[in-house]
This record gives sequence, structure tokens and C-alpha cells, in this order.
Amino acid sequence: MTERVLIIGTGLIGGSVGLALKRAGGFEVVGVDASADHAANALTVGAIDEIVGDISSGASKADIIIVATPVGAISSSVSSVASTAAAGTIVTDVGSTKAQVVSEAEALLGPQRSFVGGHPMAGTEGEGISAAREDLFDGAMWILTPTETTDSAAYRRVNTLVTSLGARTLALHPSEHDRLVARVSHLPYAVATALMGLAGDSDDVRTFAAAAGSFRDVTRTAGTNPRVWHDILTTNREAIAVELSGLISKLGSFRDALNDGDHAEIDRLIEMARDARRRLPLKGAREPADPVTIETIVPDRAGVLAEVTTTVGNGGINIEDIWMEHTPSGGALRLVVDGRGNAEKAIELLTKASFRAAVMDER
Amino acid sequence: MTERVLIIGTGLIGGSVGLALKRAGGFEVVGVDASADHAANALTVGAIDEIVGDISSGASKADIIIVATPVGAISSSVSSVASTAAAGTIVTDVGSTKAQVVSEAEALLGPQRSFVGGHPMAGTEGEGISAAREDLFDGAMWILTPTETTDSAAYRRVNTLVTSLGARTLALHPSEHDRLVARVSHLPYAVATALMGLAGDSDDVRTFAAAAGSFRDVTRTAGTNPRVWHDILTTNREAIAVELSGLISKLGSFRDALNDGDHAEIDRLIEMARDARRRLPLKGAREPADPVTIETIVPDRAGVLAEVTTTVGNGGINIEDIWMEHTPSGGALRLVVDGRGNAEKAIELLTKASFRAAVMDER
Repeated sequence: MTERVLIIGTGLIGGSVGLALKRAGGFEVVGVDASADHAANALTVGAIDEIVGDISSGASKADIIIVATPVGAISSSVSSVASTAAAGTIVTDVGSTKAQVVSEAEALLGPQRSFVGGHPMAGTEGEGISAAREDLFDGAMWILTPTETTDSAAYRRVNTLVTSLGARTLALHPSEHDRLVARVSHLPYAVATALMGLAGDSDDVRTFAAAAGSFRDVTRTAGTNPRVWHDILTTNREAIAVELSGLISKLGSFRDALNDGDHAEIDRLIEMARDARRRLPLKGAREPADPVTIETIVPDRAGVLAEVTTTVGNGGINIEDIWMEHTPSGGALRLVVDGRGNAEKAIELLTKASFRAAVMDER
Repeated sequence: MTERVLIIGTGLIGGSVGLALKRAGGFEVVGVDASADHAANALTVGAIDEIVGDISSGASKADIIIVATPVGAISSSVSSVASTAAAGTIVTDVGSTKAQVVSEAEALLGPQRSFVGGHPMAGTEGEGISAAREDLFDGAMWILTPTETTDSAAYRRVNTLVTSLGARTLALHPSEHDRLVARVSHLPYAVATALMGLAGDSDDVRTFAAAAGSFRDVTRTAGTNPRVWHDILTTNREAIAVELSGLISKLGSFRDALNDGDHAEIDRLIEMARDARRRLPLKGAREPADPVTIETIVPDRAGVLAEVTTTVGNGGINIEDIWMEHTPSGGALRLVVDGRGNAEKAIELLTKASFRAAVMDER
């Protein structure tokens, strides 16, 4: 069965989603972009099958709608969707911050249409549809942010869609997501900005002449799209400020060790950072999966889907698939994770959160 | 005429120097390494023509000696050289910090042998001879650090040697060099270490799972050779501490703007950093040169070579070639720079520093 997908915003991420959907097969993809040129380019490269004139006409015929505009434009897109999409339509987004976006989208869409927030942790130096790639998400983390009102069937469809793009999903509460990306993504940007600010202050031609590999690497994001960063910094400012305080404290300790000539402490800082760096996983293609299904008995109340998925997500465990089974004695959520180790860890976490969970079978 | 070069330390930089010398032609290259395996590998890949058993036996026959050991081992290498190299032998190094290294080397070598400190601003993620490449220095900046005692003929030979490796030289006083690299190289390392320290503190599996492109880029150097960084941090600690204070202040301003929700200030910081980032030159192959020769009339006193070259270097201008001419009325230093614009800028800087300077010819 072919699913009809509407992509709103056919830039780097929206275009790559389109290309990856076409690679996966089974999707009819239509697109709309504020710029007619961008939409035309997306059609030319095969990221979409058809351009629709406006969001409303596309939304009324779509099964799934993916909002891939800058964060600051998501609400207005969702608002257009809300007035025209049929009941049962599933809406997701790819915004880099989630708490504000998700709360606004849920309010706008109401209970008739399901919203599932998302954020692919992938990108390139390039911008726009010309940098889009069908393999952009292969092996990448794609965070989903279920809430109290998230419907389990809608969640499953978004989870399956994202998995078919080559990514691995991780469920986090929207505010947990925002804290996490403040650390791993927004803080590095703030550092890049501060370093370039230092260099720009002195405006020393030698600084620029001598800027070698590491300086270029560290400051790369400072050269990227200012509108994107405006939206991120203003919608996640509290979490970023907290992380900045943590970093300032670390840098202060580093400076003290240097000023004191404390070689032992300097070596400790070097080694600690090196150990932590080595634990960063390599981004790569998905490993051949060893799917293990877990059954969790769940009470019939709102928010259970979000609780179960984020409990597993907080342990860093990807959910390969998830669906609700209705049994005579109540509901059961079935989750597929990769490998026995992850399954055992997920069961431990779920049990600690007062859910009954066990491995169901090993396919 | 073939020059005999001894490379002490045949790792990434020493090995790449050897490969680039062989590519340039006209050099007989011998090597020595604390590890017999490393030296044997350098011979196998063609970075050196011959292995010598120890520094002393290699130094006695060399015209030019390149010390390419870690910073902490430079002094002991130079000490071995000092007891065996013939008068007139030229010694240079590739250490990442310069003030301490240059002052120790000059004291050890005495007036009979010429030392010219150097630092190629090039590297790769890899380590050791297996990562060495003949094109590692193509288009890269290679800082030379002349002092009061630097001989102009020795300086020219090192400048010519480095240029033949594909690099462009920039002359800076050793302490100026150390301040500059503190900002563009050591500060990014300190930041990488602090970020990994933050991540390691929380030891949050999600931090590691979600660490995407920018986090990996920014923290790359935290995973590199700890011995190298120990040497750098301990020999350049004052300058790095000063840069850390500057960065901490910038990050504090950034945090304040976020906490205040000051959108105008946030946008100003974003735009300022973006503008500065765009002014970073791209590293690339050398442009076809448009050599312009400048003649500077110089008094006959110590330190003139260092004054002239660092005056030009402080303006970010590379010196393609430089030599002393003895005229009936005194000495003249002739400098070749790339292009009329650089020549005019160099003359302006030299005039401001009370030297008489003019364009000599345009080949």
C-alpha cells in the first residue's frame, strides 16, 4: 500500500527525507516550499513526485505530513495543516528544538490529528536541496519526542517511517531532548561563536592566517545559517545557558591548573577527556539487526506510550518497532530492540519504572 | 648540489618532511628515531634514504638537521647534535611551542651552529609514519621564529627548504608565535577537553548516543596524542591561560544574552561570528606566485634579520625568499613576497618600523 507523504519545506533535511523515502519505496511524495525555485529543484532531483501549490491542498490528501521548515516557521505550517488535514492524519516535524514546538503543534492540531515530534541528528556543511542526499540519515540518530497525548498507532507509523529512512529512533521527552541537544549541539555552536568573537575582536591578520585544522573544525558551525541558529537559541535559551555555565566552570578549572603549573592535574584533564572521547560511538551504517521483542503490560491511561518509550530512550536504547496489542486482560505494548543486551537493559529500566516487561520471542 | 638532511624523529611530521623533500628532489635524507621500528617504516615508505644508528653519527655529516620529536624531547636531541655537528650546520625544529624550545636550543648550540625555530601548521587525525604524506604541507603555514642571534644565511636556507616542501613561511617572534597558537590551536584543544569533561561527568549514555557531527568535530583533538598535549600545555601555559580567560568572558556574555532573552544581542553575536568565520582563508594549494622583491637597507647590528622578518610576519605576509646583499654603503636585506599588494603593505610596515624599504624589481 502506498502512503501519501507531504513534505513542507524542501531544503536539506526535507529534500533528503524525500530522496530517502523514494529509495525506500512505497511512498508517494508531494512537496511544498515557500520558495517556488526550491520546490522545483526538489522535483528535478527526484526528492518529490509532485509540487503542490500550497500547504492546504497538500495536507487534505496526505496520510503523513512532515514539517521540515526552520523552527520559527513550524507553528505557522502546522496551523495551515490543522485547518485542512483530515482526521487521522499524522503530523511530524524535524525541528532542532522540541519543547516549544511540540506544545504549540499539539495545541493547534487538537485530538483529531496526531502529532509526533522528531529531530534527525544529521546534517552536512551544505545547505538547501543541492546538498540533500538519500543516505543522509543512514545510521543517524532520530529522536522522537512523545508526550502524554501521543497516540501509540501514530507513534508506530512515524517510528517505522524514520527507520525506513535508515535512521535509528530514540524516544525522549521534549524537554529532555532540549537539554541533551543543548549539550551536544548548541553548546558547540556557542563555543564556535565565542572563539570567532575572540578572533574577530583582535582582528589580527595573523590569527586568520595561522588558523589551522583544529580552529577550522571547532568554528565550522559559526559559519552556518544564522536564521536556523536564531530560532534554536531563542527557543532553547534556558537549557543552553545552563550548559554554558557548566562549560565555563570546566574551562576555569583548566585555566587554574595551567596558572598553578599543576602538571598532575593537567595530565588528569587530558586523560579524562581522551577516555571520554574514545567512548563516542562512530556514526556508521546500521548494523545487521538482531531484533528482540519485549512485551510490556500497560494500564489503560493517557501518557503510557510516552512513559514506556522514553524510559527505554533514557537508557540510550533505540526502538526498532513498537505497537499496541489489546489482550483480554488489558493492553500490551510490544517493543522491538536490537539485541539481547539492549532487551535486558530495557526490561531492567521498565521494571524499575514499575512496568511488567519480559522478552516475548527471539525471531 | 645535494644537501644532506638529518631528520630526528620519523613520525607524522618528520616522515612527511622526508617524503616532501624526496618529492622536491636535491636532498639526501637520513633519519633516526628512538624506535627502530619507526625508522625502519620510514625507510620502507621512502621518507628517508638511510637510517643512522644514533643522532651523533648522523649530525656529524649533515648540512641541515630537522628535529621532529615531541616538544619535550627537543632539548635532548639538540644537546646530542651540539656535541657532534660541524660548525656551520643549520638546525631547525617543528615543535608546537617555541619560546622555551628556541631559547634552550640557542643556548645549547652556541654561536658556531645556527638554529632557526619552526612550526608547520599542519597535521592529520592520524599519528606516526603511517599517516605521513608528501603533500601534508602543501599550502600550509609554516611559522619561523627568528631571534636576535639568528643568522640571515641560515634563515634563508631554512626558508627555502620549507618553501620547497610546499609550505608558506611566516616570521614571528617566538613569544608572539606562542600567543598566536595559544589562540588558534591550544584554546580549541582546551575547549575540546572541557566539553568531553562535561560529557564524561554526567556519563549520560544519551549524550554519547546523540553526539552528532558538530560535537564530534569540536572534540576531535581531545582524542589525540596525550604526550604531545602534555608538552604543549606545560610549555605554553601562561599564554593559554590568558586565552582561556578571554574565552570564558565571551561565553559569559553569550550566556547573559540567553538568560536575558535579548534577541537583538543574540543576533549580533551570531552575525559577528559568521562574518569573522567567513574571513578565515581556505587552506589550499599554493597559488601561482607573483614574486615581488623588496630591498631594505639595514644597519650592521644583531637582531636585524629577526626585526625585519617579524615586522613583515606580523602583517600576515609570507616571505617567499630572503637574503642579505652587502653593498658598499652597508647591508641590504632582499625579501621576496607574493604580489604587489603584499609588497606595498610590507614596505608600509617596514617604514613604520624605521627601515628604508622599496620595491626593487618585478620579475
